[in-house]
Amino acid sequence: MSGLEVSPFDSHYGLEIDEATDELVRGHVPVREFLLQPVGLVHGGVHASIAEALASLGTNVGVVPDGKIGLGQSNHSSFLRPMSAGTMNAVARRRHRGRTTWIWDVELTDDEGRLCALSRVTIAVRDRSQR
Amino acid sequence: MSGLEVSPFDSHYGLEIDEATDELVRGHVPVREFLLQPVGLVHGGVHASIAEALASLGTNVGVVPDGKIGLGQSNHSSFLRPMSAGTMNAVARRRHRGRTTWIWDVELTDDEGRLCALSRVTIAVRDRSQR
Amino acid sequence: MSGLEVSPFDSHYGLEIDEATDELVRGHVPVREFLLQPVGLVHGGVHASIAEALASLGTNVGVVPDGKIGLGQSNHSSFLRPMSAGTMNAVARRRHRGRTTWIWDVELTDDEGRLCALSRVTIAVRDRSQR
Amino acid sequence: MSGLEVSPFDSHYGLEIDEATDELVRGHVPVREFLLQPVGLVHGGVHASIAEALASLGTNVGVVPDGKIGLGQSNHSSFLRPMSAGTMNAVARRRHRGRTTWIWDVELTDDEGRLCALSRVTIAVRDRSQR
Repeated sequence: MSGLEVSPFDSHYGLEIDEATDELVRGHVPVREFLLQPVGLVHGGVHASIAEALASLGTNVGVVPDGKIGLGQSNHSSFLRPMSAGTMNAVARRRHRGRTTWIWDVELTDDEGRLCALSRVTIAVRDRSQR
Repeated sequence: MSGLEVSPFDSHYGLEIDEATDELVRGHVPVREFLLQPVGLVHGGVHASIAEALASLGTNVGVVPDGKIGLGQSNHSSFLRPMSAGTMNAVARRRHRGRTTWIWDVELTDDEGRLCALSRVTIAVRDRSQR
Repeated sequence: MSGLEVSPFDSHYGLEIDEATDELVRGHVPVREFLLQPVGLVHGGVHASIAEALASLGTNVGVVPDGKIGLGQSNHSSFLRPMSAGTMNAVARRRHRGRTTWIWDVELTDDEGRLCALSRVTIAVRDRSQR
Repeated sequence: MSGLEVSPFDSHYGLEIDEATDELVRGHVPVREFLLQPVGLVHGGVHASIAEALASLGTNVGVVPDGKIGLGQSNHSSFLRPMSAGTMNAVARRRHRGRTTWIWDVELTDDEGRLCALSRVTIAVRDRSQR
């Protein structure tokens, strides 16, 4: 695989990619019953998964052509406003393009454009042979 | 719901709880095809989801009897060693029990006991009526 | 004290505030010998301290008039590019204004405007009597 | 310099090292007036600085003999209990020793042994020539 497809896990929770460059990636996930935690809100792990997916994809857009691969190193997600319905909209913006790590800020908003979660994701860049 | 069940999303990716107190929670997830990212490793979002679930559950064991509920506030997961097969084993240990936040450290290990991910999860404690 | 002054520790490492509202705070620190770590680069703790100071100050601009106080809850600083001379310039932008927590993103740049560090700081808002 | 001394900044805020191996580092800082923030508590930047110092030192104990150097990559400090007097006691324990990054957990306690702050610090390992 090239590293640029929506992955099996991303398909499993319903991520769709709307745009992907090595500087900005956008995607969305419709809120469905199976994404909820016990009290009926979207599980924080879904927010974190979306952020991880977009940051990895954007990094791979940049590094796969050079024979490298991006692997998640750190994902710090802050949950600001619970969601329970509608669509989760996510935008990942690259903040740093280093030799060995890329850093992305990911914002998740609801259908009214309110900020629901913020993630900072660090992706390590490795030679494909090394991983 | 009481906040103590395995949630719809946790069932969706396969979490099973082995032990749950307000100080320690253990669970596991068998690695299956649908948990992988594009290059065949377990998606970082799965690690983050497990950590979020265990920390929330342990907090709820402690606060639900008092009419309160734990809601994820921050999840910082570091990915140390990729997994591609076997069972993800997770242990969450409470590090702080404050009036408004609880903090948990979660370790994920593979079948050989090697540390694969570390998460620090902060759970906000709210009145159920407030959330 | 009102919570709005430059604090003793901030004076000790040399912070000067250039602008402070409850949405944006700017400050700077001249790099001096006593800010360095063993190999001659600015110590990461200085970056973290500046971020903590700006986020706390901006929150206090907003909450002190209401009889509340902001107390640092979490500071996650990522170090992107080492500095060894010149001026550290910092801008803190508020990302979330909740009832109990405010979240700020802080960027540190060097004299050429290059991004050297990024911090996400969560400030807890408490009643002054409670703290 | 070898990377193993207490640095200029660490001296500036008063860090003393009690023990340093590549798996565990201990140090302490007496609380003094110049370490406080506006409302008389120890500034969060001091906690973060201590954590950064111990994690860097422990990594350098391990990598400097191989011609490498540890440089702080990420410092995530959570503040649990404010301090205003006494001694800040810190213990850093290595959690991961990778080829390119080491991860440390740092605990800060007061004179009664109560946990006041927790930090997770990631140190990047570089060739000295590369930095």
